[in-house]
Amino acid sequence: MSHTAEIIAVGTELLLGNIVNTNAQAISQSLSALGINVFWHTVVGDNPERLKEAVEIARRRADIIITTGGLGPTYDDLTKQTVCQVFGEKLVFHPEILEEIRAFYETALHVPMPENNTQQAELPEHGVIFDNPVGTAPGCAFESGGVHVLMLPGPPHEMAAMLRRHAEPYLRGLSREVIVSHDIMTFGMGESSVEELLRERMTHMTNPTLATYAKPFEVRLRATAKAESGEEAETLLAPVVELVRNTLGDAVYGVDVSGLAEVCLAGLRERNMTFATAESCTGGRVAEQITALPGASKVYRGGVVSYWTEVKGRVLGVPQDILDTYGPVSEECARAMAEGARRITGAEIAVSVTGAAGPDPDERGVPVGVVYVGLAAPEGTFCRRLDFGRRRRDRIRGLAANHAFDVIRRYLAGLPI
Amino acid sequence: MSHTAEIIAVGTELLLGNIVNTNAQAISQSLSALGINVFWHTVVGDNPERLKEAVEIARRRADIIITTGGLGPTYDDLTKQTVCQVFGEKLVFHPEILEEIRAFYETALHVPMPENNTQQAELPEHGVIFDNPVGTAPGCAFESGGVHVLMLPGPPHEMAAMLRRHAEPYLRGLSREVIVSHDIMTFGMGESSVEELLRERMTHMTNPTLATYAKPFEVRLRATAKAESGEEAETLLAPVVELVRNTLGDAVYGVDVSGLAEVCLAGLRERNMTFATAESCTGGRVAEQITALPGASKVYRGGVVSYWTEVKGRVLGVPQDILDTYGPVSEECARAMAEGARRITGAEIAVSVTGAAGPDPDERGVPVGVVYVGLAAPEGTFCRRLDFGRRRRDRIRGLAANHAFDVIRRYLAGLPI
Repeated sequence: MSHTAEIIAVGTELLLGNIVNTNAQAISQSLSALGINVFWHTVVGDNPERLKEAVEIARRRADIIITTGGLGPTYDDLTKQTVCQVFGEKLVFHPEILEEIRAFYETALHVPMPENNTQQAELPEHGVIFDNPVGTAPGCAFESGGVHVLMLPGPPHEMAAMLRRHAEPYLRGLSREVIVSHDIMTFGMGESSVEELLRERMTHMTNPTLATYAKPFEVRLRATAKAESGEEAETLLAPVVELVRNTLGDAVYGVDVSGLAEVCLAGLRERNMTFATAESCTGGRVAEQITALPGASKVYRGGVVSYWTEVKGRVLGVPQDILDTYGPVSEECARAMAEGARRITGAEIAVSVTGAAGPDPDERGVPVGVVYVGLAAPEGTFCRRLDFGRRRRDRIRGLAANHAFDVIRRYLAGLPI
Repeated sequence: MSHTAEIIAVGTELLLGNIVNTNAQAISQSLSALGINVFWHTVVGDNPERLKEAVEIARRRADIIITTGGLGPTYDDLTKQTVCQVFGEKLVFHPEILEEIRAFYETALHVPMPENNTQQAELPEHGVIFDNPVGTAPGCAFESGGVHVLMLPGPPHEMAAMLRRHAEPYLRGLSREVIVSHDIMTFGMGESSVEELLRERMTHMTNPTLATYAKPFEVRLRATAKAESGEEAETLLAPVVELVRNTLGDAVYGVDVSGLAEVCLAGLRERNMTFATAESCTGGRVAEQITALPGASKVYRGGVVSYWTEVKGRVLGVPQDILDTYGPVSEECARAMAEGARRITGAEIAVSVTGAAGPDPDERGVPVGVVYVGLAAPEGTFCRRLDFGRRRRDRIRGLAANHAFDVIRRYLAGLPI
């Protein structure tokens, strides 16, 4: 039997935008891995009437309700009282829990327990108590009329510890299904083009399912299968991944990877090759993205941000006549930048980016959005010309950086640049 | 009259925990600044029945409903249809909007518009259309039975642009109170230290209010006043800004600025000075942050990402005996890197960063978290030693980049480095 869950976060600070609801994300990921459908997230403030209404709505449409927050010792921590009122569940004072809380205060926090903390030791009469290994507020779970209610604390590290230690085992006991997903990463096609090619198959699939997500600058496809075992789920998924690969061809650059930079890093490590960068309009973004990954120092030697034309000549050795004749935003300059970066760093390959990111056109009138990506390799020098049009500066820079990594991954895979 | 808002995010990827609902946070902050109470956040999947139910519930309890997501071109983008159905509002096809979308595809994306995109040009018969400066999906707003409904796109950068450009002015028109905020930016103090110094004053203030927000790597204070005119609000705010400046001293680096990079860019432009970078552990992050700002080319000449030790010598000219005697993560190397970057680019000043970002200690055993920031200037070369401890790689890199900008801004302000 398939379960349906709602996550209710309680906290005015969420509604003011002071914090973001990462607890809902963490719980959703857990529940999704357990095969439990999460159909609603709700956030309400520290207000008993609105919380009561939210729990009443949730009770009608979900059979698992997970609350976060409002378990603390202060007067606005009303989750247990309010939830139990809706379900007609009595709160009972547990002296042994109060002693545990008092001990936590004294040994871990080194302060005496404030007396208002007694309300933290009041817990539902039925069900189970979740002890809190990293804070004072215990959580709990009970079942009433076929609905399972779990109450977890608000601070993300307390919530995460209790989720792993208590809530997941509790929920695992309710279900026997497993869910497995694979992310198929593509570059070079828009979301709607990907969907157009796959729509007919996607709409008829129920298990596994296949969905597209537009990540910044690329499209991710997620294939998800439900089964009684991980192995069985993998058997269901394999032909779907195969179908996507066959349909989208070399736009697919990897499965279950974080992005193009990771694929380039792995490909270069495998071939024991190093690379370098020469960046103008991306201003260090390619370098920043590769060095954000642990292990980058194995393959990335370094690079130059040649933002001024003068630096292209002085540091990268781009010949003055190329700068004079073609200008800094040109195929010729991109090639010379890549060759220069390769030469001065001693790397096997080097990638370069030069373009007009805006808001104003380049001084020679190259329109905003025109970008050249160069690649210098032992086999020769390559160049890709791009025109992103009048988009935001940040978007042009992001697209250009992704194209730089795409050029590397295609070179490594022996595909045409 | 005070308004009550509900934010409904539409997207299965939120319920699966693939992404976190940052849109709800951004909108909540905006609404809070406009004096609108946000009482509920709701998340539903790409499912018309559940979305319909969510909108029906919201309609009963809020007089402003803001949806995010589900405005795209694909078959599961159902927000407009579903919301309009609940309110009995007709969708009307706008050929001129379709032409704008087609033009965006052709000039910006360089692909023909897929035919399924026509649904993006269907918009509510009444109300206003919000054009999308950074994507294809337009948003919209209409009023029905006293309830204002605003529909915004899901991708956070599209949502943010439309929120600022269209939704905020629309909502401002619903109220007669003006709300004015100033953001006082600080660097170099933790959030709890800032709060401790200001707490007594903060707790007694009601108008203006003063709140702290921990931004990544720094603390922002927001002073907010409600008044009948902008002028009156400014009169209320001036002494609060003054109080914060006096209390926190030179930790305050600016008011209503986006970050340290912007302050450095402005300071350098004002003095007509240029700068350069030499980065090791930050891997181009300083360069990337400055070049993300329009106008960077006026002051930023370029830099070197000297990730390998060899590149520090070959490109930046760091003397071999410094590298041999002190190693690449040392004060001596940071100084030589900054001096090298200054020399090869011809900039007036240059900043350098070298450190151990982890996960492993530097090859000479320098512990993770130790970072040196150097500054070469006409007056001499300076260095700041930092020890961030065993933190995440990304966090160490971000902190180190911020310190590089902080060194520049303090140099420009004549403060001790």
